[in-house]
Amino acid sequence: MSAFSRFTPLIGALPSTVPFVGPEAIERQRGLAVLARIGANENGFGPAPSVLAAMRDEAGNIWKYNDPENFSLREALGIHLGISPTNIAIGGGIDELLGQIVRLVIEAGAPVVTSLGAYPTFNFHVAGFGGRLVTVPYVNDRENLDGLLEAVRRENAPLVYFANPDNPMGSWWDADSIVAFARALPETTMMVLDEAYSETGPANSLPSIASLIDLPNIVRTRTFSKAYGLAGSRTGYVISTSGTAQAFDKIRNHFGMNRLATAAALAALKDQAYLADVVGKIHAARDRIGRIARANGLEPLPSATNFVAIDTGRDGAHARAIVDGLMEHGVFIRMPGVAPLNRCIRVSVGPEAEMALFEQALPQVLKTLA
Amino acid sequence: MSAFSRFTPLIGALPSTVPFVGPEAIERQRGLAVLARIGANENGFGPAPSVLAAMRDEAGNIWKYNDPENFSLREALGIHLGISPTNIAIGGGIDELLGQIVRLVIEAGAPVVTSLGAYPTFNFHVAGFGGRLVTVPYVNDRENLDGLLEAVRRENAPLVYFANPDNPMGSWWDADSIVAFARALPETTMMVLDEAYSETGPANSLPSIASLIDLPNIVRTRTFSKAYGLAGSRTGYVISTSGTAQAFDKIRNHFGMNRLATAAALAALKDQAYLADVVGKIHAARDRIGRIARANGLEPLPSATNFVAIDTGRDGAHARAIVDGLMEHGVFIRMPGVAPLNRCIRVSVGPEAEMALFEQALPQVLKTLA
Repeated sequence: MSAFSRFTPLIGALPSTVPFVGPEAIERQRGLAVLARIGANENGFGPAPSVLAAMRDEAGNIWKYNDPENFSLREALGIHLGISPTNIAIGGGIDELLGQIVRLVIEAGAPVVTSLGAYPTFNFHVAGFGGRLVTVPYVNDRENLDGLLEAVRRENAPLVYFANPDNPMGSWWDADSIVAFARALPETTMMVLDEAYSETGPANSLPSIASLIDLPNIVRTRTFSKAYGLAGSRTGYVISTSGTAQAFDKIRNHFGMNRLATAAALAALKDQAYLADVVGKIHAARDRIGRIARANGLEPLPSATNFVAIDTGRDGAHARAIVDGLMEHGVFIRMPGVAPLNRCIRVSVGPEAEMALFEQALPQVLKTLA
Repeated sequence: MSAFSRFTPLIGALPSTVPFVGPEAIERQRGLAVLARIGANENGFGPAPSVLAAMRDEAGNIWKYNDPENFSLREALGIHLGISPTNIAIGGGIDELLGQIVRLVIEAGAPVVTSLGAYPTFNFHVAGFGGRLVTVPYVNDRENLDGLLEAVRRENAPLVYFANPDNPMGSWWDADSIVAFARALPETTMMVLDEAYSETGPANSLPSIASLIDLPNIVRTRTFSKAYGLAGSRTGYVISTSGTAQAFDKIRNHFGMNRLATAAALAALKDQAYLADVVGKIHAARDRIGRIARANGLEPLPSATNFVAIDTGRDGAHARAIVDGLMEHGVFIRMPGVAPLNRCIRVSVGPEAEMALFEQALPQVLKTLA
């Protein structure tokens, strides 16, 4: 068990933490089988058949490294978004890109502004590079734009994280407010505008590409993991000015992309009809989750994502008991990590079989806890 | 083109460099098609049919994140190697793991010892974390173990890189010499023993797992990219003490692995008969490359890898002309980056069709240059 004795002081001070415990780990630890996998904001509707076919077709080429310039994917995304391929940087999911962004901007001790209870993996990367987290509480279960701006100015922070739509609450801001926030930021503050759930929100929640593409301090992160149903594929991208996007070339793992993941992303982008169909299913499943919550006397929060936060009406210990109790029934869900958000449980959408398992288990769990 | 104005000073000083230009980029830049892809030390014999089947079977599960603990793969590797799964850390190829290793150990200005002309991607990561490269020349086209040890001691270096078998020269040391080197190192110096080509060398070039597993300062890196034919899949691993292996949990991208890549690695590990068959083909192709070289008056260097370095008998400019000339014939190869290694060209093994293209093109190129 002995470890190397000369890790950097920063590394020595870090815990061997995991931002999220996976459902497989829960299965192993508790000896339980996950029957309804609706906890990690995956998309159980899965990718298009055309995407599966593209991956299977590409399998025979797996002996070749992927193009380190990600040319075809950046070109396709550029056409899709109406921008130049040079405005795009590709990475192994938003998680990897967040790590790169923090590394590009944060030195040990530098302040980083985020919302209290927002995405833990971002915080993991901030800690990993020695940044100092400055958190702003949510207001009415939404990130507090005014509070974030005030914190950025007070701290002269080089980096601020903001997700729209938000995880873990599912809430959102309108595009105009976000653009106003971005333009009010000091140009010496980089804003991560995490748009992992951009495909599932109301139209007016998504700033146009043109509205922010001239700002070198704004990086928008998007992914094929959510609406496109490719979480296990690991493909995300950054949209920014060409100058900022090219900074990723200084540090990224150029030969890091899986070749089948690229084929999958290209095929997914082509099949917008399938995406629209899945988004409709996601909306319907959100409503389904909301009805289940209400039938059990719980309040679903409005959601622009592929999950629904449900207010349990009590505290974090109670929500934790529901999460643990549901797992006894094979229903894997999660919950926000900090108060007051952690009065909620968070249920991801999924096909009807998973929704039905949740519907069946929830009242039993609540009865046991009553 | 304007870029964010407040990247860290370290980032600001880095070039937007690419350790290797991919064959796709060469095709685009020069308007040429690659007909024989034998430059990136890929394995054109490809993975086992059972591996392709495993990837295709797993495609339907791509909507799920991969197990962040990589439990099944670490378990399978542990059984395969006769060690505990806790002795293993998984990453997206050795390239990603090298970046993590440098980050774990190197602060800005710290000396890092490697051989002059060794793996450029390692150097890329060292530069990316502000390390100071201390290089030791090859001797007789082999890495110089005594010289590396002397440099480590002189510099009190926290990190030394050594590949066995070596890339780009294909040379190797015997296991006893490597174990002696590892045991002679200060315990405050981490050694990366890069064994990307461990499957293709002579038996006596590979230290046993037991011979080094008690040393917390030794990390052995291995991959499914080479002999297993899965370069585009991106799966590598570290073998070390449990304590050192677990340090990777502090910084790695826990949800970073592609789900099909894991399925592929598990299947590849199971199919050792296929691996043995491919290794035989690699040996035969090495011999084939050697015969082609000699038939053209060039000297192939002995190789323990899936490529052959060929001494052109002249300088780097001449070797570069051969590399560029071969590409005119659709034959993609590479060459070492620094003198005197760059008197060589480096040709990766491949199926007979690629070998035949090389055989056909080489004399034409040499004739043009004469």
